Amino acid sequence: MRIKSPFLCFFILKNVNIWEEMKMKLEMQRDTLLVALQAVSKAINKTALPILQGIYVEVTNEEIIIKASDNTDTLVHLIPVDNEGVTVSSTGKTVFPKNIVDIVKRAGKTVEISSEDNGLITKVKSGKKIDFDMNCMDPLEYPELPIKDLSQPTFSVSGEQFRDLARKSVFATSESQTRPILTGVCLTVKGDCIELVATDSHRLSKLNLSVTTSNKEEMSIVIPKGTWDKGLKSFDLSKNVEFFVHELSVVMRNGQTVFNSRLLDGNFPDTSRLIPTDHKQKMTIDRKELISGLEFINGVVDDKKTASTKLHINGVASLSPSTAQSGKGNFDIFYDMFEGEDEFDINFSVRYCLEALQSIDTDTVDIHFEGPMRPFVINPVYDDISHSSKELQLILPVRAS
Amino acid sequence: MRIKSPFLCFFILKNVNIWEEMKMKLEMQRDTLLVALQAVSKAINKTALPILQGIYVEVTNEEIIIKASDNTDTLVHLIPVDNEGVTVSSTGKTVFPKNIVDIVKRAGKTVEISSEDNGLITKVKSGKKIDFDMNCMDPLEYPELPIKDLSQPTFSVSGEQFRDLARKSVFATSESQTRPILTGVCLTVKGDCIELVATDSHRLSKLNLSVTTSNKEEMSIVIPKGTWDKGLKSFDLSKNVEFFVHELSVVMRNGQTVFNSRLLDGNFPDTSRLIPTDHKQKMTIDRKELISGLEFINGVVDDKKTASTKLHINGVASLSPSTAQSGKGNFDIFYDMFEGEDEFDINFSVRYCLEALQSIDTDTVDIHFEGPMRPFVINPVYDDISHSSKELQLILPVRAS
Repeated sequence: MRIKSPFLCFFILKNVNIWEEMKMKLEMQRDTLLVALQAVSKAINKTALPILQGIYVEVTNEEIIIKASDNTDTLVHLIPVDNEGVTVSSTGKTVFPKNIVDIVKRAGKTVEISSEDNGLITKVKSGKKIDFDMNCMDPLEYPELPIKDLSQPTFSVSGEQFRDLARKSVFATSESQTRPILTGVCLTVKGDCIELVATDSHRLSKLNLSVTTSNKEEMSIVIPKGTWDKGLKSFDLSKNVEFFVHELSVVMRNGQTVFNSRLLDGNFPDTSRLIPTDHKQKMTIDRKELISGLEFINGVVDDKKTASTKLHINGVASLSPSTAQSGKGNFDIFYDMFEGEDEFDINFSVRYCLEALQSIDTDTVDIHFEGPMRPFVINPVYDDISHSSKELQLILPVRAS
Repeated sequence: MRIKSPFLCFFILKNVNIWEEMKMKLEMQRDTLLVALQAVSKAINKTALPILQGIYVEVTNEEIIIKASDNTDTLVHLIPVDNEGVTVSSTGKTVFPKNIVDIVKRAGKTVEISSEDNGLITKVKSGKKIDFDMNCMDPLEYPELPIKDLSQPTFSVSGEQFRDLARKSVFATSESQTRPILTGVCLTVKGDCIELVATDSHRLSKLNLSVTTSNKEEMSIVIPKGTWDKGLKSFDLSKNVEFFVHELSVVMRNGQTVFNSRLLDGNFPDTSRLIPTDHKQKMTIDRKELISGLEFINGVVDDKKTASTKLHINGVASLSPSTAQSGKGNFDIFYDMFEGEDEFDINFSVRYCLEALQSIDTDTVDIHFEGPMRPFVINPVYDDISHSSKELQLILPVRAS
């Protein structure tokens, strides 16, 4: 057949092109694929668009791009093709329903994936066991989620440091949407240090960590608390986490996983003046004993979320419930050291103090008081003075009822 | 002072008597008390009367009786006084609020309990740490829950057997209240054997266990499923469980814990004729492989609670989802042996079959089929023929959609 019209020729070529692009085929290790699918699936949010209920898979000759998103947070996992027993017979893309994770979990050692019908049906095969044609979604409908330039990270922390940063700050963010900015953690990069501040306006957590930054000038961003939680769930914490700070988003790279999260918009309050620099009394006390006492108070009261306790200092740290609902009495703790006038009362939230103490890792803590109606500050006491991080927990007292 | 009026004398004596009864005082090991409180607290039900929200404690010179109840189930823990470092200074009783458990948990090695004000305020002391006056409830308001005669158990099983009896039957009870009798497990004592049957009318679980019974004549009772769950939570399963069967209740004794449960009232259906005695086909298959296949189907479908699967037999056992919602295909399992005509289809509930297989402990199971619309029976295949228990799981197929 001779093609006479240049227009028809163009049409045929274009069609062939689409077909070429979509007819993907690859074979790989079950475990490699499963790790990738499980990591990105943490970004799926039931309330997002139907297409975002799926997991996007794109196969090129260089890498396999596996992606999930809720339009705010996007998780991408990249598997290089020259690695880990991946064989690409033909490139293409598709959007799997989320239960591809369960299917791959039940597969044998290797998995074969091949798409037909422009990626709308994808065959998953594994040995003589599994042969399943999955109904997939149209990859052309999947929103474009540009991958940012990831050449030079703003700074980098170890996986363990990432876990600590999250664990020591997220709990202090606000649970209410009254001031949305307070539902995130404020991260400031200055010189060779990062600072994290979280507050719900009744308590505050502040951390400083020495890092190597590529950044000259000071910059602050507010990372939503959900971002930290998703990072904890999908990252491999034996590997570093590199942060790339952009104007509207932060990208975190952890091994083959890249996590792009939108930032919270607004001005985080200046909290530096809230933190007292001086104190009237200072108590050095065993952290676990104090936790045990607060848990005793929690056992006595009915509503553990709002209960407050009275701390009475007089030769001993004596905790008692602020209300006499279930009885009267106290839990006494012998402190290690006390500076300043050794007789006063202060009332505060049991939960806030418990959460602050549980975020600290040292055996002993210093508590600085400035008076019964002034915020008090809890500091870890390190054996080793040259510790690379600094942290403090601040709690506002409550009025005695 | 000389008492002139005999009436006044009586009054004083009576008063002294009440005071004597109520002024309880004892000292004991924290752990002994905690085990008892935790065991009985499983009987507390938030919807019961206010007095039943507490834990009843009665101290006599022989034993400490610790009790909780929701009026249907009653758990009693008895601590002998001549044992485990218990010192009774004076007898009496009180009803602690439930959070006594949390308080004792935070105590030091020994706990001192002393009641004042007729048991309405009870002081809990532990070393120099805890000194707390708990508001308690009036022990005279606590309902009388007579302890039955526990001299001769009807039969006795090991803790492990108790766990197995519960695990292999409770899941097959009905979740609906349409026929309340089916929410329990029917227990029949006959000769030197007990038989347990549970069914929700779509599937049935049946177990036989050889035991030594003190019972001459056959008797059947229906034990609510909640009783099994509470038993599992509060019993020490390294110890035996003795059953005392009464007309309206069953009492189970496990070490120092005595559990009295009301029985379900009504006629449990006669299920003996439902169980086929013959079969057309018999398949011997690896239990874990079959579970893996059913979990694959569960991964593919959307509603895991109601999903059904088609089992197609033809040289291989091939599972596929009954609906093509998420795709088409199958999970193939090579069976060990097949007797009878080797080509047919049967449809059944994925969940029912999974739960039945998960209740079985052997590596291999026999499945007996009688036709696509007749119930099929799953039996464990024991290496050891002289096994002391017998069990079967019966499942009704569903119509292909």
